[in-house]
Amino acid sequence: MTLHGRGMAADIEEQPAGYDRLVDGSHATGIAEIAARIAQRRPRHVVFVGRGTSDHAALYGAYLTEIRLGLPVASASPSAITLYGARPDFSGALVVGVSQSGGSPDLTEVLTVARASGALTLAVTNNPSSPLAEAAEFAVDVAAGHERAVAATKTYTAELLALLMLVEGIRAGDGAIPAEEQAALRALPGLAARVIADDGAAELAQRYRFASRMVTTGRGYAYPTARETALKLMETSYLPALAFSGADLLHGPLAMTDPDVPVLAVVGAGPGGSAMSDVVHRLGERRADVVTVGAHDVPGAAGRLDVPAVDERYAPLLDILPLQKLALSLALARGADPDAPRGLNKVTATR
Amino acid sequence: MTLHGRGMAADIEEQPAGYDRLVDGSHATGIAEIAARIAQRRPRHVVFVGRGTSDHAALYGAYLTEIRLGLPVASASPSAITLYGARPDFSGALVVGVSQSGGSPDLTEVLTVARASGALTLAVTNNPSSPLAEAAEFAVDVAAGHERAVAATKTYTAELLALLMLVEGIRAGDGAIPAEEQAALRALPGLAARVIADDGAAELAQRYRFASRMVTTGRGYAYPTARETALKLMETSYLPALAFSGADLLHGPLAMTDPDVPVLAVVGAGPGGSAMSDVVHRLGERRADVVTVGAHDVPGAAGRLDVPAVDERYAPLLDILPLQKLALSLALARGADPDAPRGLNKVTATR
Repeated sequence: MTLHGRGMAADIEEQPAGYDRLVDGSHATGIAEIAARIAQRRPRHVVFVGRGTSDHAALYGAYLTEIRLGLPVASASPSAITLYGARPDFSGALVVGVSQSGGSPDLTEVLTVARASGALTLAVTNNPSSPLAEAAEFAVDVAAGHERAVAATKTYTAELLALLMLVEGIRAGDGAIPAEEQAALRALPGLAARVIADDGAAELAQRYRFASRMVTTGRGYAYPTARETALKLMETSYLPALAFSGADLLHGPLAMTDPDVPVLAVVGAGPGGSAMSDVVHRLGERRADVVTVGAHDVPGAAGRLDVPAVDERYAPLLDILPLQKLALSLALARGADPDAPRGLNKVTATR
Repeated sequence: MTLHGRGMAADIEEQPAGYDRLVDGSHATGIAEIAARIAQRRPRHVVFVGRGTSDHAALYGAYLTEIRLGLPVASASPSAITLYGARPDFSGALVVGVSQSGGSPDLTEVLTVARASGALTLAVTNNPSSPLAEAAEFAVDVAAGHERAVAATKTYTAELLALLMLVEGIRAGDGAIPAEEQAALRALPGLAARVIADDGAAELAQRYRFASRMVTTGRGYAYPTARETALKLMETSYLPALAFSGADLLHGPLAMTDPDVPVLAVVGAGPGGSAMSDVVHRLGERRADVVTVGAHDVPGAAGRLDVPAVDERYAPLLDILPLQKLALSLALARGADPDAPRGLNKVTATR
């Protein structure tokens, strides 16, 4: 019996409780207040900045912003500001920094520059006393608690959920999430616990024990899940994992796929999932080995990680759970310690 | 003697002539006129959409826009609009669609929706009679001529150069690029010819003959080069190639690197290049095999592809050239036909 991976396993298990903590009580009230104040200021567009896992949460926030708020979204290049001295006019913008630690100087500098140029600034972090939170006008604490493993799991989903609650609160105008939406959010902890209890991911890990690379793909709301899955596999299992939106996969990288390349395809029950059917078909022509993540079997796929059917907007909060477990199990099967990946620290400071 | 790769080789060789064609004469006048009209309308922010190689050109356009124009940039998610029916308010925005063929329905739909909501729209394509060009208010023809190979090379750099000329024309206000800038642009064809004549890339390809994966990295203006290099390697050599900004590489994927993972690092002579020194150092700690692209040797690197030292703003027009040659040579060494990659067509239609 190894002690490796105990931290990551515990972090993963805590996610349903984390969802519960955020959707009710004081955290929800705090998010609603910030949402109401942001809605009053009527931002004209939204800029997201993040790195690594938090960039994938930011990408989810971007889809929500475009689809639910009807606002254009920017993903600013921190290097334009921190390295090249760009000073874009952010007036009228809401600039959101997403960071588990809140400790990366480049993101803090972006928020500082944006705030000075008149932007509304918001930090979404797991550390409310971090430099990023202090640099921003508003700060949301995702309240995930101490994360044991270097690879982020529960802080990622807490960022997703906080962003979802913020966007729905801004959409409502007064921060108060409508009752129907509230009911859907309150169902998430129970659904998440059910997904985590399933052993399908651990079994699937055996199948990838000797894979030398992997491709992940999804479209729309599922694309951040594909990106985050690839990063977890790289961080914990040292497996080169390439993430593509289903559309981008067809614009070139498809050539790389063959029967030796396992593909994980997130195929939800909605427009993003429907658009993936052509992608799965084209992958089938290349005889790639496709395993899907979703509630329904897809013709041509070799297997499926089962998650409950929910609106695609909520699916990122469930789909990633078996994929985190897959990364954990695969790392252990390959003899790595996912709690302390080689070469990484919990706080990465980039400029 | 094989006929494989003849088309891609010819496309690559034509790039200096393509630069020459764009920077002088009627194409330059056309771009200047469009730049002047865009400048008059004073867009508040810029949205770029593209797929595959053209998305990398769009990313370069994004850096230019932030740094040279001081405008916030958005990379819109076409799927939010085409799949989820999002109708963001694009008024006050300049929405730029970048596409070699101008034939992908999703980008055309984004420009159509944006134009209907009051945005200024611009198509940058190699086909002035394409649906994308017709949907946009303004269209720039990058005039690269017929591209023989499926993998885009000369259309990519023509997109880069057209975007550079547009941005500098908008910055000038009246579309007229200042004399000093003109001189730098006019030097590019000669410098490009010199880079293409160098055989370093073909020799380096031998070294990667049996590589099972590859990592590419760069920061700032060099990041699009890293992304495009990875795509070329995937398309032509079927090599899983992972591209990261130098900063994102440190936020997780670094764990995946070891002596068996070759790394191509674009290290220019400016702020982006300077910020890469920490990245190369950290890769050295992981004993990764690093080859740099740039004008100066970097301590710890195993080799270097030589390109002339120019301002980092122009470097993407030169740095990619030996990397295209590397992809071509490596594909041939591995027995693939880079002119007709398996599973791909020249025009990829995604929705």
